[in-house]
Amino acid sequence: MQGQSQQQAYDRGITIFSPDGRLYQVEYAREAVKRGTASIGVRTSDGVVLVADKRIRSPLLVGTSVEKLHKADDHIGIASAGHVADARQLIDYARRHAQINRLRYDEPIGVETLTKAVTDNIQQYTQVGGARPFGVALIIGGIDDGQPRLFETDPSGTPYEWKALAVGANRSDIEDHLKENYQEEMDLDGGIGLALNGLASVNEDGLRPEGLGVTTIDTESEQYRVLDESEVESYLSEHDLLADETETETDE
Amino acid sequence: MQGQSQQQAYDRGITIFSPDGRLYQVEYAREAVKRGTASIGVRTSDGVVLVADKRIRSPLLVGTSVEKLHKADDHIGIASAGHVADARQLIDYARRHAQINRLRYDEPIGVETLTKAVTDNIQQYTQVGGARPFGVALIIGGIDDGQPRLFETDPSGTPYEWKALAVGANRSDIEDHLKENYQEEMDLDGGIGLALNGLASVNEDGLRPEGLGVTTIDTESEQYRVLDESEVESYLSEHDLLADETETETDE
Amino acid sequence: MQGQSQQQAYDRGITIFSPDGRLYQVEYAREAVKRGTASIGVRTSDGVVLVADKRIRSPLLVGTSVEKLHKADDHIGIASAGHVADARQLIDYARRHAQINRLRYDEPIGVETLTKAVTDNIQQYTQVGGARPFGVALIIGGIDDGQPRLFETDPSGTPYEWKALAVGANRSDIEDHLKENYQEEMDLDGGIGLALNGLASVNEDGLRPEGLGVTTIDTESEQYRVLDESEVESYLSEHDLLADETETETDE
Amino acid sequence: MQGQSQQQAYDRGITIFSPDGRLYQVEYAREAVKRGTASIGVRTSDGVVLVADKRIRSPLLVGTSVEKLHKADDHIGIASAGHVADARQLIDYARRHAQINRLRYDEPIGVETLTKAVTDNIQQYTQVGGARPFGVALIIGGIDDGQPRLFETDPSGTPYEWKALAVGANRSDIEDHLKENYQEEMDLDGGIGLALNGLASVNEDGLRPEGLGVTTIDTESEQYRVLDESEVESYLSEHDLLADETETETDE
Amino acid sequence: MQGQSQQQAYDRGITIFSPDGRLYQVEYAREAVKRGTASIGVRTSDGVVLVADKRIRSPLLVGTSVEKLHKADDHIGIASAGHVADARQLIDYARRHAQINRLRYDEPIGVETLTKAVTDNIQQYTQVGGARPFGVALIIGGIDDGQPRLFETDPSGTPYEWKALAVGANRSDIEDHLKENYQEEMDLDGGIGLALNGLASVNEDGLRPEGLGVTTIDTESEQYRVLDESEVESYLSEHDLLADETETETDE
Amino acid sequence: MQGQSQQQAYDRGITIFSPDGRLYQVEYAREAVKRGTASIGVRTSDGVVLVADKRIRSPLLVGTSVEKLHKADDHIGIASAGHVADARQLIDYARRHAQINRLRYDEPIGVETLTKAVTDNIQQYTQVGGARPFGVALIIGGIDDGQPRLFETDPSGTPYEWKALAVGANRSDIEDHLKENYQEEMDLDGGIGLALNGLASVNEDGLRPEGLGVTTIDTESEQYRVLDESEVESYLSEHDLLADETETETDE
Amino acid sequence: MQGQSQQQAYDRGITIFSPDGRLYQVEYAREAVKRGTASIGVRTSDGVVLVADKRIRSPLLVGTSVEKLHKADDHIGIASAGHVADARQLIDYARRHAQINRLRYDEPIGVETLTKAVTDNIQQYTQVGGARPFGVALIIGGIDDGQPRLFETDPSGTPYEWKALAVGANRSDIEDHLKENYQEEMDLDGGIGLALNGLASVNEDGLRPEGLGVTTIDTESEQYRVLDESEVESYLSEHDLLADETETETDE
Repeated sequence: MQGQSQQQAYDRGITIFSPDGRLYQVEYAREAVKRGTASIGVRTSDGVVLVADKRIRSPLLVGTSVEKLHKADDHIGIASAGHVADARQLIDYARRHAQINRLRYDEPIGVETLTKAVTDNIQQYTQVGGARPFGVALIIGGIDDGQPRLFETDPSGTPYEWKALAVGANRSDIEDHLKENYQEEMDLDGGIGLALNGLASVNEDGLRPEGLGVTTIDTESEQYRVLDESEVESYLSEHDLLADETETETDE
Repeated sequence: MQGQSQQQAYDRGITIFSPDGRLYQVEYAREAVKRGTASIGVRTSDGVVLVADKRIRSPLLVGTSVEKLHKADDHIGIASAGHVADARQLIDYARRHAQINRLRYDEPIGVETLTKAVTDNIQQYTQVGGARPFGVALIIGGIDDGQPRLFETDPSGTPYEWKALAVGANRSDIEDHLKENYQEEMDLDGGIGLALNGLASVNEDGLRPEGLGVTTIDTESEQYRVLDESEVESYLSEHDLLADETETETDE
Repeated sequence: MQGQSQQQAYDRGITIFSPDGRLYQVEYAREAVKRGTASIGVRTSDGVVLVADKRIRSPLLVGTSVEKLHKADDHIGIASAGHVADARQLIDYARRHAQINRLRYDEPIGVETLTKAVTDNIQQYTQVGGARPFGVALIIGGIDDGQPRLFETDPSGTPYEWKALAVGANRSDIEDHLKENYQEEMDLDGGIGLALNGLASVNEDGLRPEGLGVTTIDTESEQYRVLDESEVESYLSEHDLLADETETETDE
Repeated sequence: MQGQSQQQAYDRGITIFSPDGRLYQVEYAREAVKRGTASIGVRTSDGVVLVADKRIRSPLLVGTSVEKLHKADDHIGIASAGHVADARQLIDYARRHAQINRLRYDEPIGVETLTKAVTDNIQQYTQVGGARPFGVALIIGGIDDGQPRLFETDPSGTPYEWKALAVGANRSDIEDHLKENYQEEMDLDGGIGLALNGLASVNEDGLRPEGLGVTTIDTESEQYRVLDESEVESYLSEHDLLADETETETDE
Repeated sequence: MQGQSQQQAYDRGITIFSPDGRLYQVEYAREAVKRGTASIGVRTSDGVVLVADKRIRSPLLVGTSVEKLHKADDHIGIASAGHVADARQLIDYARRHAQINRLRYDEPIGVETLTKAVTDNIQQYTQVGGARPFGVALIIGGIDDGQPRLFETDPSGTPYEWKALAVGANRSDIEDHLKENYQEEMDLDGGIGLALNGLASVNEDGLRPEGLGVTTIDTESEQYRVLDESEVESYLSEHDLLADETETETDE
Repeated sequence: MQGQSQQQAYDRGITIFSPDGRLYQVEYAREAVKRGTASIGVRTSDGVVLVADKRIRSPLLVGTSVEKLHKADDHIGIASAGHVADARQLIDYARRHAQINRLRYDEPIGVETLTKAVTDNIQQYTQVGGARPFGVALIIGGIDDGQPRLFETDPSGTPYEWKALAVGANRSDIEDHLKENYQEEMDLDGGIGLALNGLASVNEDGLRPEGLGVTTIDTESEQYRVLDESEVESYLSEHDLLADETETETDE
Repeated sequence: MQGQSQQQAYDRGITIFSPDGRLYQVEYAREAVKRGTASIGVRTSDGVVLVADKRIRSPLLVGTSVEKLHKADDHIGIASAGHVADARQLIDYARRHAQINRLRYDEPIGVETLTKAVTDNIQQYTQVGGARPFGVALIIGGIDDGQPRLFETDPSGTPYEWKALAVGANRSDIEDHLKENYQEEMDLDGGIGLALNGLASVNEDGLRPEGLGVTTIDTESEQYRVLDESEVESYLSEHDLLADETETETDE
């Protein structure tokens, strides 16, 4: 009881520290991220893979409208987990930032540069009053000077670079799968397989192509590419991950 | 008790997360939506149908003044459920946005583009302090490049695309009806029937034409069209949904 | 007790939703409306009637200074109930809006257009922080393209169109009278009678001309006209509604 | 107890309604008015009389510095009751407003016009946050197109027109006296007598000229005129209202 | 207990009324005035006297730095009691206001005009949020058109004119002394004696020249003049008010 | 208990008075001053001495970086006690103010003028909301027209002039020493001795040169001069105040 | 209990003092610093060493993306401990400040000048409302006029200069090691050894090159230089500090 009431004293305000130096609003925003279905990113020798679990909560819902994968620029994709409307704000911020870079310097923005612009924007919402933090985590992947790069932004505004990662529900279990199976020399094909297997590791009943989003940016074309449902289906077949045709409710 | 008093600590402020990552003010705004009578949207092969339950609470009230169906542009209609005055603000926002598009680009705005402009506006009211969220859900339907499209906006500012949906009171029951009876190849005529039957499924005493609003936007004319009372009455007769002439009080 | 203390948690702030989706400040503003004496509007075949109960609380008070009926433009009148000083703000807003319309388009503003401008203004005070809602309801009546129109604005900012209505104290009882006796084909003469009888139905001791305000806008002249005390007295005599000459205290 | 603690919940904020539709801060400001000594206004056939009770709390205080009667323009006077410093703000507002009218239209401002400008200003302090209401009531008297007019402004910002009235301490008792003795055909001389008798009716020990302020604006000169102490003394003698020469403490 | 907890509810906010129409923050600012040592003003036939009790709390403190008497303009002096830093703000305001008057109209500002400019400034801090009231009272004395004038400003922003007054600690006891001994025909010499005797009436151990400030503005020179310590000592000797040479601690 | 809970009601807000007229935030800021190590100022016949106790909390800390003595202008020095970061803000303010004076009037600013500019700045933080008071006291010493002057600023924004004073920890004990030993005719040499002895009077284990800062401004050069460690050591030796070489932890 | 609840009263607001003169939000920000892994700085005769513990919490995380060492300008490096996103804001501030100095004066900024610009920025967040303090401490090291300088900034905005220091977790233990082993005449090589040994003193299992960041700025080149993993490994071998190859989880 004591501990609980003490906690309440610090987590109501947006921009204040608790006696042990924590920012509760930021930690609660991380809970909002966990409430969203997972997204996965894998960096391979010849590109970057982004996979999103778009569990569709009704057969009447149009799957493509569940926004979890976004093109930020020709060579950069973003996957999100958490509060969808918040994600849209950050995606818009990233797109404008990338466009301005092209206009001003006549060249594509770096993946790291873009990530840090986004995290600096996020940090402001954790320090200055009058607004709450963003309840969303992003995976930002793309090609920097011919090299695949993969970053994460969290609600505190800290940027991290990863070889492979998951955000959202079951993050920890999926990352265990990734850690065991990731190999530096993997190619895009292998990366897609790893990501789908990682997602399947927390979905007992298998995966279905219409409930998944898969995109790649390869080092050759440096273009954001969305795999269509049949391509996704072949990958699922190949890895024996296809769900039975019983309908599944989701909670997103 | 404990749970309740804990909840109170987080739902008084507008822009803060609860420890489990929820935004209570947004969830309460969703309750405001449920307090409004239902609106239904159906996407058919040749257009979009919007139907609104305008339960008239007095014979002296002029039915057409109960605003639940709105023309946003020639080719886009919006149905609402929830706080009427809030809906008017969003409709005005949508209309201005559509007009500016015509002025600037000399072409009609896309239904998806318009929806996302509206949801981005809604999201701001859930993150920045000094105002409450909008207590209203919208169904935005219209024709995009010859294709019928149907979107939903909710109080969190998340956009969804649907084949058929309901917002407002009894949403879940009406959607059960829609799920069972929706067919991709339906035409507008069938869509109107589906929507009216969906609404009737939660109105035991049947429906009356003066208490309903029905509009269509078909792919041929790409024009927002309001059905008059006699047209509505024929549909109700055809589907055997006409109420007896006993007066009904409503609660809106 | 529980229910009560829970309610208190939500009704102190201006701009927040309660867990069941209600805006308590708006509902309390409606109570402020009920504390004011009644105003009545009736739409007839050849014009609009506005009647206000201006109960005078002292013989030394100059009756004409009790402001409940206002000319918004040549062809539009407004009756109010509730917080008088708040009403004045909205009337001024309406007048400026009507004048600007004449200046800009060189034609009188529509009654519906004016009503919606007023309700949009009211809505802002229910969503944005830093001010309370308006504690007043208005009846806006006038002639639109030769047609009599009659609207209501409430503290939430929702516009309604009516054939006949009452706002303020005893609204529900007066509306019962109106519902029973309203006839679509009534003329102005009949409308005045209906309104006065409606008001008398909740004033056991009858009415007195100096405590009433009666105005009409007819479709022929399209002019706001205030009936003088002798005209009001003849109507009261005709309908046998004249009070005895014993003085009555009022509470306004 | 219950009632009391419930009330406290609503009267701390400036701009919010209580569940029964009241604005407690405005009602408390009315209490501030009652804490001030009374002022009286009387409209007569040939002018307006303003009388103020300036109870002097020390023989060392200079009586003329107790500000309760103010010249707003040549033809308009203002008497106040309540918070003196607040009154000064409103008087300044009224004077500037009257001067601007002369500059802009080259004619004196109407008494009613001026009153409504003042009340609109007062209303803003009851609706918009960041300031408290004015704790003062004013009696504004003057000549409009040759006619004597007499208005009241209260802390809610409502304007009233009166034949005779009192504001401040013992208002209700003084108004009883005014009601019994007021006559429409009274002249200024009679009006002064009525006002002084009204004030005396709540001062058992009689009145003293140095503790009173008396001003008139007559329809002939249309000029604000302050009666000197000897003139006031003759009126008191004439009406047998002179206090004995024992000193009286006051509470202002 | 009940009364106390009720009071607490109203005295925490700056700008709100209590149920009985009081402004607690203003009343508490008056307590801050009482915590300061006294200042006295006396208006005589040929000028104005200001006397301040500058109790020095340490022999190492330079007496002239205890600011209680200030020259506002050549012909106007100000004595203060209460919060010293607040007094400085108001003195600066008064000086700027007096200078601007000279620049704009090429003549000295009136004592009454200056006083009211200061009180209007003070009032703003009692009505508008975001700042506390000034915790200081001023005595403003000077020559207006050859006449000595003496005003008080209090924390509510009300101006008073006096023949003789005290502000600060023991105000009421000193004023009793002044009331008994003030004479309209007194000259400056007599006024200084009255003020010093008044101050001595609440200092049992007598007064010391270095702990006093005495200034005059006479009608002939119309110049603010500070008496030096020897002059003050002669007055004290003359009136037999000199303290013994035992050191006294002060509390200011 | 009662007293304590009552106090809490007033000391949480920045800018409000307690019922007894106190500003708790200012008093708490004074406590912050007491938490800092002491600084001492002495005015002598031929200059001003500033001495600061810079207790070094680690041998790895560079002593000169413990900022307690600052040059504000060639002829003015400032010693501080309390919150170091707050002191830096005020020092910067003082320096800018002094520089502007040189630029504008081409002459050095007066010590008293500078002090009052600083205290006026401090006062604003005690009256206007949105910031806390400064938790620091300053000793401002220098030469005004050839005369040594020594001022204090406290967290309320009150300026005091002193012959000798201490601020910070043990102020009262050090001032007792100063009172007993100060002599008006002292020269700088004597002043340094007095200050060091004063500081030693509250440091049982003696003083060490590296933990002290000593500066002078003499009337001849009118230049701020910092004594080096060997000079300080000679003074300490001369007065037999040198600490043994055992290391001492400090708390600053 | 009493003490605890009393503390709560003062640590919720950002900018207020507690009764004992403390700023709890600043102290809690210091706790946030302690939650971060340690950084160490050492000043040697020929340069400055910065070492950071970048404990990598997953083998999939790219070590270089854990930002704890930053180049502020060619000749200045910054190591941080605490809230990473906050650190980024201050680093950006420092970089812009350094660049502006080069542009404006065409010379590199001083290390001390830069440090004080940063601390002044930090202080504002502890005094002015609307934002929380920065939860980060920085070590700013570089070359000033050929001399190595090493500064610390803490959450209160106080600058300190050090010969050697640690910030973050286990600060006190590491500083004990530094105190015992620091020597003024050390060169860069020795400084690196001292820093690594200091860090190892609180890491029982030894250190690993990929989990460390080491940078130097030497007086000859005056260039910020990052040691590569093999260089770090040799230092670790040389000092026998290499960890066994068992994987370690970290908490950052």
